[in-house]
Amino acid sequence: MSDPHIEELLDFLRFKSVSTDPARADEVKSCADWLCRKFLSLGLTAEIHPTARHPVVTARNEHRPGRRTVLIYGHYDVQPEDPVEEWTRPPFEPEIVDGRIYARGATDNKGQIFAHIVGVEQTLAEAGELPVNLTFLIEGEEEIGSPNLAPFLEEHRDLLTCDVIAVSDTGMVAPGVPTMTYGTRGVAGMEVTVDGPSSDLHSGIFGGAVANPIAALSRLLTSLHDGDGRVAVEGFYDEVAPLRDWEREEWAALPLTEADWLRNTGAPALFGEAGYSTVERVWARPTLEFNGIGGGFQGVGTKTVLPRRAFAKITCRLVPDQKADAVLDLVERHLRQQCPAGVTMTIERGHAGAAYLMDPREGFGIAAQQSLEKTFGRKAVLTREGGTLPILESFREILGVDTLLLGLALPDCHAHAPDENFPVENVLAGIRLNRALLAEFAAD
Amino acid sequence: MSDPHIEELLDFLRFKSVSTDPARADEVKSCADWLCRKFLSLGLTAEIHPTARHPVVTARNEHRPGRRTVLIYGHYDVQPEDPVEEWTRPPFEPEIVDGRIYARGATDNKGQIFAHIVGVEQTLAEAGELPVNLTFLIEGEEEIGSPNLAPFLEEHRDLLTCDVIAVSDTGMVAPGVPTMTYGTRGVAGMEVTVDGPSSDLHSGIFGGAVANPIAALSRLLTSLHDGDGRVAVEGFYDEVAPLRDWEREEWAALPLTEADWLRNTGAPALFGEAGYSTVERVWARPTLEFNGIGGGFQGVGTKTVLPRRAFAKITCRLVPDQKADAVLDLVERHLRQQCPAGVTMTIERGHAGAAYLMDPREGFGIAAQQSLEKTFGRKAVLTREGGTLPILESFREILGVDTLLLGLALPDCHAHAPDENFPVENVLAGIRLNRALLAEFAAD
Repeated sequence: MSDPHIEELLDFLRFKSVSTDPARADEVKSCADWLCRKFLSLGLTAEIHPTARHPVVTARNEHRPGRRTVLIYGHYDVQPEDPVEEWTRPPFEPEIVDGRIYARGATDNKGQIFAHIVGVEQTLAEAGELPVNLTFLIEGEEEIGSPNLAPFLEEHRDLLTCDVIAVSDTGMVAPGVPTMTYGTRGVAGMEVTVDGPSSDLHSGIFGGAVANPIAALSRLLTSLHDGDGRVAVEGFYDEVAPLRDWEREEWAALPLTEADWLRNTGAPALFGEAGYSTVERVWARPTLEFNGIGGGFQGVGTKTVLPRRAFAKITCRLVPDQKADAVLDLVERHLRQQCPAGVTMTIERGHAGAAYLMDPREGFGIAAQQSLEKTFGRKAVLTREGGTLPILESFREILGVDTLLLGLALPDCHAHAPDENFPVENVLAGIRLNRALLAEFAAD
Repeated sequence: MSDPHIEELLDFLRFKSVSTDPARADEVKSCADWLCRKFLSLGLTAEIHPTARHPVVTARNEHRPGRRTVLIYGHYDVQPEDPVEEWTRPPFEPEIVDGRIYARGATDNKGQIFAHIVGVEQTLAEAGELPVNLTFLIEGEEEIGSPNLAPFLEEHRDLLTCDVIAVSDTGMVAPGVPTMTYGTRGVAGMEVTVDGPSSDLHSGIFGGAVANPIAALSRLLTSLHDGDGRVAVEGFYDEVAPLRDWEREEWAALPLTEADWLRNTGAPALFGEAGYSTVERVWARPTLEFNGIGGGFQGVGTKTVLPRRAFAKITCRLVPDQKADAVLDLVERHLRQQCPAGVTMTIERGHAGAAYLMDPREGFGIAAQQSLEKTFGRKAVLTREGGTLPILESFREILGVDTLLLGLALPDCHAHAPDENFPVENVLAGIRLNRALLAEFAAD
């Protein structure tokens, strides 16, 4: 990748395109504008499509009959940078250190989608045209669950008609090991708020008279798991599809050890549901995770209050064949049954996305594995992914096609976390992968 | 109270003398300066005494042999104003609405100590002298547990020698009902931090691999109580002195109903240890209360992280004969035994203060009850107080005297909470009480 392309990627990373924060809607819009201009500069047709919240950017070459049509999907929005004080460098002032680009969005997803764009740019510069009909679809709401993408797909079926979709927004099991992901977990979220007194109370004058919302919330959260990390909500596992033997065998052979998990998390120990390896727990078992908790005084020193309120943010990761609404119904019923005396509880449901599973051992899956082998010079491994790409189910339902997940993120790229980064060499691999993939699909 | 005195009290309330916040040390100092100038303007000798943190202000008339010596104690520091967004008015811009002064510190303790100062000012203006030897002792560290007061008492025994101490920093059971408090609860605090991964993790990519610090912390906190609100720490109640029959009878007759507790807390229900009335739970039973909790993402919307850390702030209210260090030892031992797998736990101990109990049915206690009766025109009731005045034990140990607690705060004055306030009529009662008290002690 030449210097101008590096500089361009750093420009892309400077946009604070945090989709969850209403105060940053203008930054999101500016980032979409930048992306559209980039596509136009390649000679592609490009458009910005407003939605109810953040715009979608599309781009395409001239589509000709008799060729395969490929859609490349990505997103230009990013996660919030909190806790910002734990970043080594400012999250929106990208810097390259030891061959890695540090910035919010470097790996998820700006660095990866940008590699595809540069791949196309290079092919066009060298060959004058692409070997396939190509459509880019880059949205600005992936990190908030893509609420407006399904309606957009419905509305623009013609524009988006394709034979297959390729996405680089998942991970590689290890540096240099080409990885094809054939399934993802879903997600379903809610926020639980526990209210007690009508204002914060003096814990001396009133302590002992009424229930403490933090104590009540803790009791509620604790009731959601047993002591071994298994979710204790009745019916939670009823719809979970069991792992197949070939998957357990393939995964057991991966270059991904318990020591890797320890190093990549920095946790003092691994922990979770008995009877499953760590990789099985993360890729093929559901979770109920607490993403945040707050209540009362959190400043320096002591403040002897009995707080009026406490809240927790919860998301479940779902696996086939769990349904988001059904799981949230179970969790909500559990919480209402368990709500302690002396407080009131409010539940607000958040975003949801379905799990996804395809068969990697046929059709475009085989072509994708060949492209990966060409790019990296070794056979691709087959994995699932613990994260969620809720749009995969929409692609299948609305556009009627499968999606190939050919991600380039490494376990220590810190997606969603402080010091997010992406190796420059993975940008280069992404460019090669794009070129191999389009060639393979054209020839297939 | 004449307008100039009201204006003076509002000036006193404008100082942001928050003792726990290092950034506000200058405001605390300015407030001490203001107080010292006020005493000097009355014709008293006054001094500002620096300590390791916030200064002590003392003032006295000329002490003559053969008279009773009375020490009046108070504090000019205040609690933090968090959560500031829940205040109807800015906490340090005092305003009088419907006969109540709204400001942080209005009731705790600036309004109450200021009434004593005005009482002395009036007596001096009318009589030219006071009927007793008087010493004012006003500190700036009460809200952080008075860490430097005991050393100050040791160092200034001569200056502070007295026969009895009077303090107005407690509550009245109802408007117009004179109240003498003969016991307070102690306090002992700690902060518990649970650490998991070395940084916030993507809850999809890593969820299921490692323990969630919020889940671990919730489990720890939940283990500290049984489902009925009784503290589940082994040995926690071992040293608790049982309530005496006359206390239970006196308290049962107080004009303080369950409906009052509900109204004053705004909670949906009362809740606590079985076998005790609400007033008994608050005045004579210990608690273990959660003052604050935090961890992970607390902003608007969703952030799908598995957080690296969660913490909780805990304070116990103690009763005779519990000892703070011993109780903290028990709680810490419990937490260490209960700490779940997959995380590490850190405990930092906070401030501590002893519980206090005197016999109100003899000596100065009787004189104080007579002053209260004269001030309010009805017999005083005998109560204890759920809050903590850790210096009472120091007064007894170092100065060798009892302390009379003649507080004027009402249950809806919101001490330590948003919209703290103090009725103007209680300022007037405080002035009358000061004059009656000094006269009664002189005559006794």
